[in-house]
Amino acid sequence: EILAAITDYFTPSTAPLQGIQALVTAGPTHEAIDPVRYIANHSSGKQGYAIAAALQKLGANVTLVSGPTNLPCPAGVTRIAVQSALEMLAACEKSLPADIAVCAAAVADWRVDKIASTKLKKTSATSLPKLNFALNPDILASISRDGPNRPGLVIGFAAETEAVEENAKSKLARKGCDWIIANDVSPQTGTFGGDNNTVLLVDQTGSESWETMTKNAVAEKLAQRIVEKLKLNT
Amino acid sequence: EILAAITDYFTPSTAPLQGIQALVTAGPTHEAIDPVRYIANHSSGKQGYAIAAALQKLGANVTLVSGPTNLPCPAGVTRIAVQSALEMLAACEKSLPADIAVCAAAVADWRVDKIASTKLKKTSATSLPKLNFALNPDILASISRDGPNRPGLVIGFAAETEAVEENAKSKLARKGCDWIIANDVSPQTGTFGGDNNTVLLVDQTGSESWETMTKNAVAEKLAQRIVEKLKLNT
Repeated sequence: EILAAITDYFTPSTAPLQGIQALVTAGPTHEAIDPVRYIANHSSGKQGYAIAAALQKLGANVTLVSGPTNLPCPAGVTRIAVQSALEMLAACEKSLPADIAVCAAAVADWRVDKIASTKLKKTSATSLPKLNFALNPDILASISRDGPNRPGLVIGFAAETEAVEENAKSKLARKGCDWIIANDVSPQTGTFGGDNNTVLLVDQTGSESWETMTKNAVAEKLAQRIVEKLKLNT
Repeated sequence: EILAAITDYFTPSTAPLQGIQALVTAGPTHEAIDPVRYIANHSSGKQGYAIAAALQKLGANVTLVSGPTNLPCPAGVTRIAVQSALEMLAACEKSLPADIAVCAAAVADWRVDKIASTKLKKTSATSLPKLNFALNPDILASISRDGPNRPGLVIGFAAETEAVEENAKSKLARKGCDWIIANDVSPQTGTFGGDNNTVLLVDQTGSESWETMTKNAVAEKLAQRIVEKLKLNT
């Protein structure tokens, strides 16, 4: 029995991602306005952290590039903490090459063009700030771009509040990634910050709707799909 | 000995704020941009929570109006959780009358004028959002305004990154509060999110600089000053 357990432990089937490098992004980004204010979003990082943990359990070497969250780093995972989209892109580039990339972070599309070095003051009762924005780099599109460092499988997330499937399909084409995991993050769904997720897996050939399950279950199911996909590719 | 302990416990000197109503605000506010994005600030809420706890320990009935934080509610304190400045003002107004108000929250000066009901989309590679702002109500000035509900002692906080004393004195005059606790929240000080604070107590007669100490120690010292002030007032 002991021998069987040991054999089982070292059997490829229990560590099907042994030797696989995985890059996972998670959490929100914070885009500074001035030294005290910033623009954030409601991503908790839970789904990305669960995916990093699930891939690690299947034997992958996982680097987790994480925006600000309150989550502990999953056991065995290497975490790089970042604040802004620019920092996240730089950390991702340093973490390539990888065999798989899962971009679960909710990256801010825009940053404030010029970050004030001192706190913006309310100079008069009626003065309002004028914020000019700059476009952030598109991390998912950047990782998906053809080249020697492109991971064999690039998976993006789409956080939508309307027309979820349509927006996800358009995002897949626009970004050049292989799969999109689309979820409805309307406040009434409780997805952002909550423990459950209802997702749609979209690839070039179609889409597949998964029943509502915990973010951990979504992560495990996605990790299994990744194992199957990598088997097909070899 | 038991009798002494009991007597001591019920002695006014150990509960000098018995019967006193205190309103404390703490934490940042989150001002929604759309269902997923918001503007925040780096306030952790630690200083305000420590003040609520210190006042409660001295016997006060404390209502803590708190923006989003990860802190547990101090024992014996009534907490009202809010997100935005408008919600914080409404919760404060409901919590008045009070004998003391300590406004430690880092309230956003501005909110987004029109909150989008669905997620702002990046419609083209170059499209940038135009955010128009509206001035938030000034909660400290509102509580400090003369009237039957004005607490006998109103204390505000000033989070500054430059000219701390000058800005604090100007804020005291402008808001109509009795004391300002000014602190330097420049990133290099580590005040926002950290456990220490270096403050300056400013009133009509002058200012007093406190050495760097933990936020708990600042809270206890401030609570003692409040006790002394209330004694003078009676």
